[in-house]
Amino acid sequence: MTSRSPRAAEAGCHVWLADGPNAQAYWERADRLLPGGGIYLTRSARFAGSGILPGFIASGEGCRVIDVDGKEYIDFLCANGPILLGYRHPEVDEAARRQMEQVNSASFFPPALVELAECLVERTSGMAWAVPAKNGSDVVALGARVARAATRRDTLILFERAYHGFDPEWVPGGAGVPASRRDNVLRVAWNDSKQLERVAHEHRTEIGGIVLNPLDQNPALDTIEPTEAFLRMIDEVRDQTGSPLVFDDIRAGFRMHASGSHVALGVQPDLICLGKALGNGYAVSALLGTEELRAAARSIMFTASFAFDAVALRAAVATLEVYDRDDAFARIQRSGERLRDGLLSAAKNTGHRIRYTGPPTMPTLLFEDDPNLDRGRRFSLEAAARGALFHPNLNWFLNASHDDAAIDEAVSIAAEAFDAIPPPADS
Amino acid sequence: MTSRSPRAAEAGCHVWLADGPNAQAYWERADRLLPGGGIYLTRSARFAGSGILPGFIASGEGCRVIDVDGKEYIDFLCANGPILLGYRHPEVDEAARRQMEQVNSASFFPPALVELAECLVERTSGMAWAVPAKNGSDVVALGARVARAATRRDTLILFERAYHGFDPEWVPGGAGVPASRRDNVLRVAWNDSKQLERVAHEHRTEIGGIVLNPLDQNPALDTIEPTEAFLRMIDEVRDQTGSPLVFDDIRAGFRMHASGSHVALGVQPDLICLGKALGNGYAVSALLGTEELRAAARSIMFTASFAFDAVALRAAVATLEVYDRDDAFARIQRSGERLRDGLLSAAKNTGHRIRYTGPPTMPTLLFEDDPNLDRGRRFSLEAAARGALFHPNLNWFLNASHDDAAIDEAVSIAAEAFDAIPPPADS
Repeated sequence: MTSRSPRAAEAGCHVWLADGPNAQAYWERADRLLPGGGIYLTRSARFAGSGILPGFIASGEGCRVIDVDGKEYIDFLCANGPILLGYRHPEVDEAARRQMEQVNSASFFPPALVELAECLVERTSGMAWAVPAKNGSDVVALGARVARAATRRDTLILFERAYHGFDPEWVPGGAGVPASRRDNVLRVAWNDSKQLERVAHEHRTEIGGIVLNPLDQNPALDTIEPTEAFLRMIDEVRDQTGSPLVFDDIRAGFRMHASGSHVALGVQPDLICLGKALGNGYAVSALLGTEELRAAARSIMFTASFAFDAVALRAAVATLEVYDRDDAFARIQRSGERLRDGLLSAAKNTGHRIRYTGPPTMPTLLFEDDPNLDRGRRFSLEAAARGALFHPNLNWFLNASHDDAAIDEAVSIAAEAFDAIPPPADS
Repeated sequence: MTSRSPRAAEAGCHVWLADGPNAQAYWERADRLLPGGGIYLTRSARFAGSGILPGFIASGEGCRVIDVDGKEYIDFLCANGPILLGYRHPEVDEAARRQMEQVNSASFFPPALVELAECLVERTSGMAWAVPAKNGSDVVALGARVARAATRRDTLILFERAYHGFDPEWVPGGAGVPASRRDNVLRVAWNDSKQLERVAHEHRTEIGGIVLNPLDQNPALDTIEPTEAFLRMIDEVRDQTGSPLVFDDIRAGFRMHASGSHVALGVQPDLICLGKALGNGYAVSALLGTEELRAAARSIMFTASFAFDAVALRAAVATLEVYDRDDAFARIQRSGERLRDGLLSAAKNTGHRIRYTGPPTMPTLLFEDDPNLDRGRRFSLEAAARGALFHPNLNWFLNASHDDAAIDEAVSIAAEAFDAIPPPADS
């Protein structure tokens, strides 16, 4: 499927194209019919560099996907997070199909809305209510509103580089966003307890909430976990300002701890945002909150037609049931560790110096001395050509269907990919 | 299923409860597990008044739904709009099932993304690109960003009472929304061409976009169509300020004209927002734009994991195919006219004075001299007890599976419901 391409060679940064003729035909249509540019930017295969990874995926099963030209890959992207148990998990899909045989959307509340809320509240310590919704972005924005409504203060503390979805208040890139939209957000450097203390003190009468990701994890950067001192300072700021902690667990949720990433960090949020993995690929998110914040939530007007799509709600209930029953977190964790150990060893054996950061369930691989990601892209390209999808500048995700055989096969592919790249000059 | 209820009688406004024991058990859980209040407000059956309409719908088929206690209703709510062809339309569901057998969400772009964009662009005159997304709210907010990015001006003209989703900038109710969030929105009275002209002139160097619903349609109010003079003034303001027209066709889309509600109005938008009916109950929305606005769209960073859920995208493609092939708009229109004629006649025969406004495909029925909606609620309650769902304060929706027999049955039920309500004192 992968073929030497004059076009790619001319572009200078690579000599292969991952896309076959069917994908190229889709790209021609996509380039005409979608705006491109920043729209869908990080989701486009081109975010990895043009021609590095297959642009269009036709199908998936377990931990494998097949592109529109019929090439199969072991997948470590998991649809950017949603695939938690494996593509087309039979029990989740069966729950979705059974619900489709009843109804997808109907008027008023579907029973599945209550059942998902119950599931979420029962398995999440300290949370009293839940608001299922659609996008992750929906529930971070809603969580911020609840915090502001509760405190009657507008200013939020967010951390530098932290992605919290596409709300104009904090979406990266300011095109089309009135400048004043950012006036109520204070960005503090990650793990900088002193700055946090200073900013919180200066604005102590204004702060209405703190929005926290469990990790500092961004494209083409090492993942940095929060320090104990930083987390303690966040707790102090909450106490001193009475500001709710809005915990954005959309990306990391279900992959850092079975009971929520906040448990891994040892913090107790006031509001928790879930999305991505919650429905194993079906579109569902949720905001969870404490009893203390119920009145603030009630004061807010929020509804969305598709929050009541019972197919997605049922899929989420089934996902949680299977995840808990099968101890899926432990399985994903073990597979992630096996992958990490294999890749670190393969890199060492081929003379490559890499940094492998983040939880093993959602790692980032970066090459040392690779400021333009040339090595990283080459690695992804060589691995894709051999049948494994590793993103060169986004973190990866593992799912519960990555078994030992798949991990070992992927490690072999990665070893060949490392071997195909010239080692650094001084090695 | 409907039973005399001491609790309801004490509440004073009605003497029946639509909910049976299963629904009451769901309400007990919902009241504990969901925040209530403004969260899901207009979607809750209680928005019609407590005990008027069934709280929990278990299943649907065609134009009928069944509640969790097994009672069947002819439905005129259509999940608040999404059900365009009928509940569980066999071809749409089959397309969704076939896609589920391939994959729901996978990495990068699904082929269905391109296919839906192509479908939308080809059938919508003047539009060059499309951005499928999830909620209606997503694409109105994105459309506003495109307009602002194109003009590099922040101020938007919106119309009084116009609902455009849950973006904090214009969501009804200000709890948790910094006051400055509303600073860039000018609200002009509907159909007030003079005010529009004056406001546009005063702010002519600031206006970056106009966001327009095809109808002034709000809870417990008559629907008011835009006047020709008003639409001409909107066009003048666009010309004079160079502001794109963002046409919010989320609620009315596919129910005012087969090619888009703007065609019924005779306006040519720069951006069109679709949602609700687009996927016949599957969660999908889309922003469409002109070639002139492509660069502005490209300048914006926007992505969302679930915009790439191929099941919903396929369902939308199938919905559009069936809608066009079956001339579904004409069928919905005819059924809506039959319902309107039947209800107007039934009201007259029973001595009730009603106002029946809006397009026949999405009408609002209000009683004259009914400031607290007591008659309206009583009508909805009596009709629900007899097996037809009419909302007392939201507009209704018809779908393509409302056939003559169903309409005639619903009209008979409505006639009995009118008959059960005391006519006005002076009739």
